[in-house]
Formats: sequence, C-alpha cells, structure tokens
Amino acid sequence: MTQIRVLDSYSEDRWLKGARARDLVSAIDGSPVATMPEAADAAAMLDHARLVGGPALRAMTFQARGRMLRALADKLTEHKEALYELSAHTGATRSDSAFDIEGGIGTFFAYSSLAKKLPDAHFLPEGERLAISKGDFLGQHLLAPLHGVAVHINAYNFPVWGMLEKLAPTLLAGMPAVIKPATVGAYLAEAAFRIIIESGILPPGSVQLLLGEPGDLFDHLGGQDSVAFTGSAATASRLKVHPVLVANTVRFAAEQDSLNAAILGPDVTADAPEFDLFVREVVREMTQKAGQKCTAIRRILVPRAQADAVGDAIVARLNAMTSGDPRAEKTRLGALAGIAQRDDVIANLAALRAEAEILCGGTVPDLGAALAGGAFFDATLLRCANPSSATAVHSVEAFGPVSTLMPYDDVDEATAIANAGAGSLALSIFSHDRAAAARLVAGVSTFHGRILIIDRENAALSSGHGAALPQLQHGGPGRAGGGAELGGAIGMQPYLQRTAIQASAEMLAELETY
Amino acid sequence: MTQIRVLDSYSEDRWLKGARARDLVSAIDGSPVATMPEAADAAAMLDHARLVGGPALRAMTFQARGRMLRALADKLTEHKEALYELSAHTGATRSDSAFDIEGGIGTFFAYSSLAKKLPDAHFLPEGERLAISKGDFLGQHLLAPLHGVAVHINAYNFPVWGMLEKLAPTLLAGMPAVIKPATVGAYLAEAAFRIIIESGILPPGSVQLLLGEPGDLFDHLGGQDSVAFTGSAATASRLKVHPVLVANTVRFAAEQDSLNAAILGPDVTADAPEFDLFVREVVREMTQKAGQKCTAIRRILVPRAQADAVGDAIVARLNAMTSGDPRAEKTRLGALAGIAQRDDVIANLAALRAEAEILCGGTVPDLGAALAGGAFFDATLLRCANPSSATAVHSVEAFGPVSTLMPYDDVDEATAIANAGAGSLALSIFSHDRAAAARLVAGVSTFHGRILIIDRENAALSSGHGAALPQLQHGGPGRAGGGAELGGAIGMQPYLQRTAIQASAEMLAELETY
Repeated sequence: MTQIRVLDSYSEDRWLKGARARDLVSAIDGSPVATMPEAADAAAMLDHARLVGGPALRAMTFQARGRMLRALADKLTEHKEALYELSAHTGATRSDSAFDIEGGIGTFFAYSSLAKKLPDAHFLPEGERLAISKGDFLGQHLLAPLHGVAVHINAYNFPVWGMLEKLAPTLLAGMPAVIKPATVGAYLAEAAFRIIIESGILPPGSVQLLLGEPGDLFDHLGGQDSVAFTGSAATASRLKVHPVLVANTVRFAAEQDSLNAAILGPDVTADAPEFDLFVREVVREMTQKAGQKCTAIRRILVPRAQADAVGDAIVARLNAMTSGDPRAEKTRLGALAGIAQRDDVIANLAALRAEAEILCGGTVPDLGAALAGGAFFDATLLRCANPSSATAVHSVEAFGPVSTLMPYDDVDEATAIANAGAGSLALSIFSHDRAAAARLVAGVSTFHGRILIIDRENAALSSGHGAALPQLQHGGPGRAGGGAELGGAIGMQPYLQRTAIQASAEMLAELETY
Repeated sequence: MTQIRVLDSYSEDRWLKGARARDLVSAIDGSPVATMPEAADAAAMLDHARLVGGPALRAMTFQARGRMLRALADKLTEHKEALYELSAHTGATRSDSAFDIEGGIGTFFAYSSLAKKLPDAHFLPEGERLAISKGDFLGQHLLAPLHGVAVHINAYNFPVWGMLEKLAPTLLAGMPAVIKPATVGAYLAEAAFRIIIESGILPPGSVQLLLGEPGDLFDHLGGQDSVAFTGSAATASRLKVHPVLVANTVRFAAEQDSLNAAILGPDVTADAPEFDLFVREVVREMTQKAGQKCTAIRRILVPRAQADAVGDAIVARLNAMTSGDPRAEKTRLGALAGIAQRDDVIANLAALRAEAEILCGGTVPDLGAALAGGAFFDATLLRCANPSSATAVHSVEAFGPVSTLMPYDDVDEATAIANAGAGSLALSIFSHDRAAAARLVAGVSTFHGRILIIDRENAALSSGHGAALPQLQHGGPGRAGGGAELGGAIGMQPYLQRTAIQASAEMLAELETY
C-alpha cells in the first residue's frame, strides 16, 4: 500500500474533516493503512436523517427504492476491485474477500429483486383482508417505514457485507441509516460507503457514516428509531439497557455470540459420502475468513465411534493447507483482523483448553520476517471428551480458526449438546437418514436460527454452513442475540411498523395505493 | 357477597394452601371479597412447566391444541355467570363485565378457529418454499414452540380478558404458561383460571397461577422463555433491564401506557352524521370500564371550529349518565378498580390540569352511605387550549373516565398532536373524506398499533375504538411498549422460534408432517 487512506465521517451530506485520532494497520504486516478521525457529532447526524433522509425515502415507493438498490449494486460491482485490494489488509484471501464483497453486493441485488414483488406504493399490506364485521368494515394489517433513524453498529469481520446486509433491507423499507462500522477494518467499510455516496444515487440524508466512538449517539434515540447491532454479547448487554433506549422503547436487535454446531448423523460411517462432505465443510468453516465468521462451525458433533476418524481427517486437511500472506494465490488461511483480535483468540483458547485437548494448532506460526507484524494464527482443532458436562466449549467463542470436536452417543445426547450452546445462528446436519435428521431438527430447531441438512445428493448445491443467504433468516435466539436479519421481507421488519387498519374496502384501497 | 373467597396459587398441578397475606375488597363498597396467599415458589413452577407442561403441549399438533382451546371456550361459557357475579366487585357494570368475560372467551373461540387453518403437525411453515440453489436444495422458514415457559404478567383492568387473550395464542403455539394476575381483582382471574383447571382439558403443567408478588421469578428465566407484560411503562422499564433477562436474551414484550387519540376529520361539521357518531364513541370510551381500558380515548382531537360544539355535546351526554352501583341496571358508569387506583387518577388529573381546564367532572361523587367505601369517580372532560405545545396531556395517562379535548387547525397539526403521544395502541378517525383520512393515516400510522376509520356508512358495523379484536394486532410502538398481541397468527410470534431450513424437498416434507 503506497498511500495511507485518510478516513472521515460523513455527516449531513458532506465528508467531515476531523483531526486524526489513530492509525489503522494492515493485518498482514502491521504497516499503516489508514488514519481514523476524532469522533463526530452523532446528534447532528440523527437530526439530519430524520429531517431530510427519512422524508425523501418515504416519498419513494417500495418499487422505486428497489430500483435504487439495483443501481447501487451495479455501481458497487463496477468499483469492486478497489475493495478487493483494501480487503487483503484485513487478512482476507481473495476467496475470503469475495465472501465479504460479493456477498454484500449480493444482498443489494437480492433486495432489489424482492422489491419487484412489493407494491409501487407507500404501504406494504401484510396478510389478507380480515372479515371483522358482517358488512363493509374490514381489517387489514399494513406496514410502513418508521419515522426515525436506523442505527447500524457493525462488526469488524465483514466490513462490506456487514454494512450492506443491514443497509439493503433498511433502505428498501424506507428508513435512513447512520452507520457505525467497527474501527478495525473501517477503511474497507469507508471505501464501500464512499462508492455509494459518489454514485449520487441516494437522496440526501439517506446514509451517514459515523467513524470511531459513538459518543452520545444513544442519548438521542426515540421510539421511531431502530438499532441493529452486531458484535459481542457483552457489548450488546451493555447497550440494550441504556436508559434512553429503555425509556423510549427504542427497537434494538442484536446478532451476537454463537457457538454453531455441525452434526455428523448417527447413520454416517467413515465410508459414507457424508463423512467426507462433513470433514470438508468443517475445514472450510474453520479456515474461511480465518474462522472469523459469526456462523462458523465451532462445535463438531460426531458419533463416538467416528470421533477418531473425523479428528484425523480434519487434522490431515488442516496440515495440508498453506497459511500466510492472503495476497498469495496458494494461501488458504489468511490472517486474523488484528493483533488484539488474535490476543482474544489466544485468551479464549486458554479457557477452552480447560475442557478440551489440542489435536492440532494452537500457536502463532513463524511465517518469516516480512509477515512478523501480521495477525496470523494456526488452525486449531480441539477435542472435548465430555461435552455433556462441559461449559466453556459451549459458551466461549474463540473468534478465529478454532473448533472443538465432541463425541456423542445417541440423537438425544447430540440434541442436548447442540442446545447447550444456548442459542446459535446456524447448525448443519450431515445425514442420509431423513428420520434421524427430522428427529434432530425437532429437538434443536428452537435453539437455532438456520439449519442445513446435507447429504450426498444435495451437498454440491449447498452454499455452505456459514453463508447467510439474503432469502433466509440470519439470527438466532438466546446467546445469538435474538435478532432476525435478512430472510427476504423478514429483514425489513425492524424498520417497519405494523398497524391494524379497520375501514371500508374503498378506504383500504385508498391506503394501499397511497 | 356472603362468602369471602380464599385464593391460592396453583403450582405443579395442585392448589397450594398458603398462609394469608392480605384481603381484597369490593370496588363497590370496600367490603372484603377475597384473601390473597403468601408468595409461592416461582422456580418450582418454571421447572414444572419446562419438564411437564412443555413436552405435553409440544407433543400435540397445532390443530389438536386448537380443539383444546375450543373445549376450554365451551367450558368457560358454561360457567360464565359465576364470573359476572364476581366481576361486579371490580366496579364493572354488566356491560363492562361482558367486555372482559365474553371478550376473553372470544379469544379462545377465535384462536380455535384459526387453528383449523394450521397444520395437523408440529412445525408451522412461514411463507413459501425458496429457491436457494439450481436444484433440489430449497429454503423454508419453519416455526416451532419455544422449549421454555411463557410468563404472563397481567394488568388489573381486565382480569379475564387480560388472562385469556395472552393464554390463547400461547397454548395454540404450544407453550406452557405461568400466569401472574394483578392483585387487584385477582379473585376474578382466579375464578376463570379455576374453571380451566377443573375442566381437566389441559395436559398437566400447561398452566400455573402465581398470586401476589413474583418473588425471584425473573432470576430463573432463560433464552427459551418469553415474558408478556401488561402494565405501566415504569414497571416495564424496571423489569426489562433485569440482569438475567438481559444476559440470557429472554424475550420480553410489553403493552404499557398509551394516550390514544380520536380525530374528528377536518371535513366534519356539527350537522354531519360523523359528528354525532364521534361524540357517542368518545363518551362510550370514557365511561366503559370507567375508562380503565388501555385502548380508551384519552385525547379528543377536533377541528378548532368544532371544539366548543364537541365539548358541549360530550358534557351533555356525560351529565345525562347514571353512575353508581354497577349491579344496578340503570348504571352506565361503574367504579374504578379500587381506592388506590382512584388516588392515581386524582394525582394524574392534577398533572393534566396544569395544561387543561375542566369542562365537567373532576370530583368524587356522593352516592350515599352504602357506596361511600366504593371507588367511584366522576366522568371528567378536560380541554387543552394549546395541545401543540403541551406535554402532560400527551404523556400522563389518568387511567379512569378522563379525557382531554384538543383543537387542531389543519391535518398537519392533527398529525403532530396525535404523534405527540409518542406511540399509542389505538387511534380512530371519524371522517367522510377518504383523501383527508388517508393523509392522516399516512402521517400517524407508525405511531399507532391500530387505526379505525369510521363514517356514516360503517359506524354501525364497527366494534368500536377500544375493542381489541383477536384478528387484529393489539399493541403499539414507543410509549405503548412495542408489543404485538392478538392479530391472529401474529399473537403466536412471541412463543414461536423461526428457523430457516435448507434441505431437499423430501426432507422439508418430512419436517412439515413431523
């Protein structure tokens, strides 16, 4: 990187020129990549969004907003190579970057497609007309965009996707957004945001970028605002009890810690196709984005008789992988997002080791002098002998290339172990026995936001355990935070208010074409 | 009342025999009606619901649970006269009691009807099959009942309806409930609950009754539990930041304060049919249940030119009404639920009087020696000259027969005044001008959970401003708490977890018939 990017917040339709607060460094070698500004005035952003952005977006129809998303997706696609270049400095390989960049742009394409089925009007009907009287006085639920601001607090692991997957349903719903990206990797989020601004496609006030500390942002929120948070459970727990949020019933949706499981079915032996499919998927999930995916497989549940074979197969594949500079074509395992993030992984790994032994990894690799300042960490497989009585392996999320193998004796025990995660984003079942898979799903479904059931016939069609698709809910109960993002129209719910209307058919028609 | 009812909590499928804690008195004359027990062991109830009630309910299909609701509705209907007798002591006239008792039983009938359209199976599909690959690997959102307990914290104003409107969607969804009724009027809730238990229709552990203080109830909740609260915003704000709820992401839905408005359209003059319809509806809302309805009209918005005429018409009707013993046939305005509740109304009225003058009422009536111990209060109409700059009239809920007249100059001002409530349950518009009504709805919809648009043609068909119908959402944003009860299937959402399934068509079929 020849030039250090000077990052600024974007407020009230202009780039602020703030004093410099700190440097951001490359995950590859620790060299400076960008400089962050001092905190901006959050209240001014909120006012502008409410006074300018909201009315402009609400004046458009759902279909018009969908066309706007399509134009933005095209513009982002046009400029995406610049994002790939920056993305490498987050530690991401080309393939990892695609997950972030193409995945993010993909949500804009998906929501623009969804919009074609929505009304070319300002209310979105939900469900059918309801007969609430014996004559022409009917019920109808209508959805409309909240009159406040969507506040997006994003995590560091997906600077592009994390921003765009929240922004697509927000803009389609008709709300303006104030986006606070994570500081680590903020240069990549800022670059994607800048493409959006420079496209000139959005009405004034639609989006603003708040870099650095949120300051007094939460002190100025009200009942028509909606906060979408992605990050740690600890931070979410602190934010959601903010007295202003509580007093004003500000919507707050969190997507937080998740100890996702993959279950090898009780029917699967080492010679079955599902065995190999399972091992490949676990290895991909451990290494893609260096394991920094909220949906990554952290717990590997296998029949006790297969535990040794699965462990050996995973270790063999991990050992055959090249780690190092993510810009090198042969690299399969890139770097963590930063040294502080690696320190967190090491600390959490220590907690896991109280309940599990290391089968491979667990150390910082020596990749030579050029990469000595990078945030690399070996892919690490643990094995927990007694997962039914363990606690840390179900609650401590080492957010890196770290996963724990857990043997189970029967479907009931597999169910209990999976649910010991106390709520997760994603779970996959590799099985060719539909009855066994159905029994597992019945036991685990309410603890999991998304479940894949993979076998020899559909594995090639699957987008994988960790991919949050725009059409499907992303979010899980309990420890995972209780939020529900994406999922097509589901993802717009945090930004829409439902109102039950009681009126004549003509009046309802008047509203539905308003 | 000849016999004082001895109330007990119902825990682990038996009536506890607790020591006596306090007396409950009649709202009519202050005579003792029932005695409350000491607090029960909440943790034991939760355990029992999770271990016994949940599995039994989840073993049934949606349709089977619907048939169970229908049987309960029939049984409650059979025994309802006993409820009417007790209900009078809450201060309710026969008509008020019908709103509570028939309304409550009606939710059971409505949810049993809804169940006929639900699967005779254990998962509830949401939306269509989604094409997420080029082959036989599809997406489908499925809903299933949470594995925990539904905790219902009910308000004192509707001892029967308040209990049954939460219980119907909970049981249909497949969750067991621990019900904590308000202490005031608990004898009526207990009597309805007892009919349910003695019917023998519900599986063991399905419902339990926690009388008096909740004790350490909240300390034992987890991520598969769901709290539904109805009561004051102050109590809701205190409960929802409970550290256990926050740490475990326990679902918490509140239905709290609401300053509902009725708007007389800008088109309506004193000779229009809508004028009289409006006045009648306001008077009904002020006096039904002595104004103790969370949906009651608190703010009466009228074109400035009509303000005097509307005020005069309301006062004339209120003055012509008989208040007194709710058991007397001629009584139209009964008593408040208790002396403490009347004290609250008087205190809140004092706050309102800082911004509004009294047009009628405002005092405790002299109804003779026999009723001297009762909780009566005169129907009270206030008028606020400058509602656009006032605050108390939009935020202080005098939970009794109290409402404030507010003149407005144009649709924009009417919109701003309505929204100054910062989130309400219900709003009604009386207008024969569809364009004006649509403009009002567009401005106020996201601040209101339910909106009625009434005119000369449909008024006779309407169930009224204050009636929360089982088919329509009951709940509003902001000050109203953000919850969404009833509304058909919407009302089951707090008790169901959505899971996105990715699987083959055959596997999805296996789950949908599981």
